Amino acid sequence: MEILAVNSGSSSFKFKLFIMPEEKVIASGQIERIGQTGSIVTIKHHGGEKYERKDNIKNHKEAVQELMDLLLELRIIKDYSEIDGVGHRVVAGGEYFDHSVIVDDNVIAKIHEIAEMAPLHNPANLVGIEAFKKILPQATSVVVFDTAFHQTIPEENFIYSVPYEWYEKYGVRRYGAHGTSHRYVAGEAAKLLGRPLEDLKLVSCHIGAGASICAIKNGKSFDTSMGFTPLTGVTMATRSGDVDVAMISYMMEKLNIDSMTEMIYMLNKESGLLGISGVSQDSRDILQVAHANHRAQLSLDILVKDVVKYIGQYTFEMGGLDGIIFTAGVGENSDEIRAAILERLGFLGITIDQEENQKRGVTNIISGPDSKITVMRIQTDEEVMIARDVMGLSQK
Amino acid sequence: MEILAVNSGSSSFKFKLFIMPEEKVIASGQIERIGQTGSIVTIKHHGGEKYERKDNIKNHKEAVQELMDLLLELRIIKDYSEIDGVGHRVVAGGEYFDHSVIVDDNVIAKIHEIAEMAPLHNPANLVGIEAFKKILPQATSVVVFDTAFHQTIPEENFIYSVPYEWYEKYGVRRYGAHGTSHRYVAGEAAKLLGRPLEDLKLVSCHIGAGASICAIKNGKSFDTSMGFTPLTGVTMATRSGDVDVAMISYMMEKLNIDSMTEMIYMLNKESGLLGISGVSQDSRDILQVAHANHRAQLSLDILVKDVVKYIGQYTFEMGGLDGIIFTAGVGENSDEIRAAILERLGFLGITIDQEENQKRGVTNIISGPDSKITVMRIQTDEEVMIARDVMGLSQK
Repeated sequence: MEILAVNSGSSSFKFKLFIMPEEKVIASGQIERIGQTGSIVTIKHHGGEKYERKDNIKNHKEAVQELMDLLLELRIIKDYSEIDGVGHRVVAGGEYFDHSVIVDDNVIAKIHEIAEMAPLHNPANLVGIEAFKKILPQATSVVVFDTAFHQTIPEENFIYSVPYEWYEKYGVRRYGAHGTSHRYVAGEAAKLLGRPLEDLKLVSCHIGAGASICAIKNGKSFDTSMGFTPLTGVTMATRSGDVDVAMISYMMEKLNIDSMTEMIYMLNKESGLLGISGVSQDSRDILQVAHANHRAQLSLDILVKDVVKYIGQYTFEMGGLDGIIFTAGVGENSDEIRAAILERLGFLGITIDQEENQKRGVTNIISGPDSKITVMRIQTDEEVMIARDVMGLSQK
Repeated sequence: MEILAVNSGSSSFKFKLFIMPEEKVIASGQIERIGQTGSIVTIKHHGGEKYERKDNIKNHKEAVQELMDLLLELRIIKDYSEIDGVGHRVVAGGEYFDHSVIVDDNVIAKIHEIAEMAPLHNPANLVGIEAFKKILPQATSVVVFDTAFHQTIPEENFIYSVPYEWYEKYGVRRYGAHGTSHRYVAGEAAKLLGRPLEDLKLVSCHIGAGASICAIKNGKSFDTSMGFTPLTGVTMATRSGDVDVAMISYMMEKLNIDSMTEMIYMLNKESGLLGISGVSQDSRDILQVAHANHRAQLSLDILVKDVVKYIGQYTFEMGGLDGIIFTAGVGENSDEIRAAILERLGFLGITIDQEENQKRGVTNIISGPDSKITVMRIQTDEEVMIARDVMGLSQK
């Protein structure tokens, strides 16, 4: 069967087309600037070349139509009816969804309802879902939630120490994010370790532009560093991670800012590695100048410390640690940052296999053979998880 | 020599009178409701009885005068000139003070300047300092800062991941609190362990109505859970500890609250154990009902988890752990909460000596003889630290 995994934004979407259950990608790409002039369609035909077209695409429905026409034109598919299922990433599933589900009116209504908590993402995800449903009515439409994996987190780890009514009435709690990625790499880690996932205590470090650390105990999310929103946890490209709210109040007076929305914007867009270093939000740029730039080096030191501290926190919360996973952009590609983190964990008897650590574009064990705890770099694949969930639900 | 250790609030102060260097307390007490009708003076004459007097005391100067008159009347001292030094607790010392200092005009000016960061405390502390200086001009006047001990925290642990200019221009950073307590118990822990403080990695858990956890590496504060203000870290009696700022923004909309000050008030006064349990801010009340009250049990579970997570975080940040200290109201007196924390740390090879743990009003080792890490309950004594600092500075 052929399954499309889709990640929709408000003016773009990305897709991957899989043959399942082989998990073979036959095409991938994206459509950008939907609803703007100069929309760009990019399709990478696996086993073929890259195709790009500029156009003016008015809305998501037109974008999906254009994508399907191009898939036909490029002979990637022969007929729309080949597409058996479409899986959509949805950022926030609240407490309603602890697993992926087939889209129906009730599901749509719930995603709308939760949109209040993820105002930038859920509405955009919905536009994509509805556009695909119109063009491909025969395909099973499935939603895969970023938060679903974290619904196993026990109450003592998801409740904030605020009036409990805030949770009961307004749904305020830790929801986390990157659940699809954490779920995928946990499965891969069990394979690498050759042990059942149900027996393992893992810490997954998903470090990209956004970053979240997840404690995975017996295959289930036990705690995670992102909270009610993706603002908290470790320092990120431009997001602050954990701060003192009273400090934010103090800064609002100092900067003469009345609007909390404006402060949240600064914490999301002008903080993190960018805010500390003043150089860049990209750790590669920062690494290049860090030897001669105090703030650049400091930003990396803080990232390393933050990851170390969360690994410590989760090891103690779970009561042990069998493996550490690095994934996503920085986690997969920065041997320097991985090495800096692991050096600080040397006291646990963790050693580094420098050769393995320096390899690129692979999934591998990067700790030494004598290491007390196995450390893995795992290439994440949220799209294949989406395709698997679509396949699973299609066959029920 | 005779030294007074003083802790001033806006309408009260507490004191302890020591004979130094013997560290013998010869009197202690407090004056409450200064500037209000029905002021109450309480003096406990050590080796004698408790004395209480009601009066109308207009201001701190009158309060100090009344205290000194009573000390004479009760024959605790024979003359004002016996008081060689007065040490004052000051909440916020900013980055100016990394140790206690003798009061001069410059020091007063700096405490005024920093008052912006501790608007509820520093001005009240100053009123006390000036009142004692007027009545006891011959005594050495010393200020002891709650934040001073934490000035050794390395930059990567004290800088928030926000625009660095916020630190440079507005002094936004982690300052911590309870420094005098953490410093005192660290010294006592080294004695109990029979090892030099300079060789130790300790985590000090000061758990009272306010609570802060401190990583003490080689005798120096290395990190602490309170931040720019005492709002952050573990859950407290009525304070929230760590939260998601974006969640606060969401709740301001939901509750139709415009004022950040109002939100901070709720996080300081209506959150923590009280907010979660809905029962009480006092862990003793909560413990009594927890078996039959889900929210009460949850509030305790969250406190235990928070302490466990910070011990884990700091163990990993320091790269090891030689001892855990419990101190302050809950830390010293709640064997149930200590036991619950230590049970979760069993995976480290920590064992509990139930008999020692259940003793009251002592400083002792509460881990078993086979425990891989030594756990101590230490009765804190901020006043004796203040008296020691006054003595040290008087003799220079």
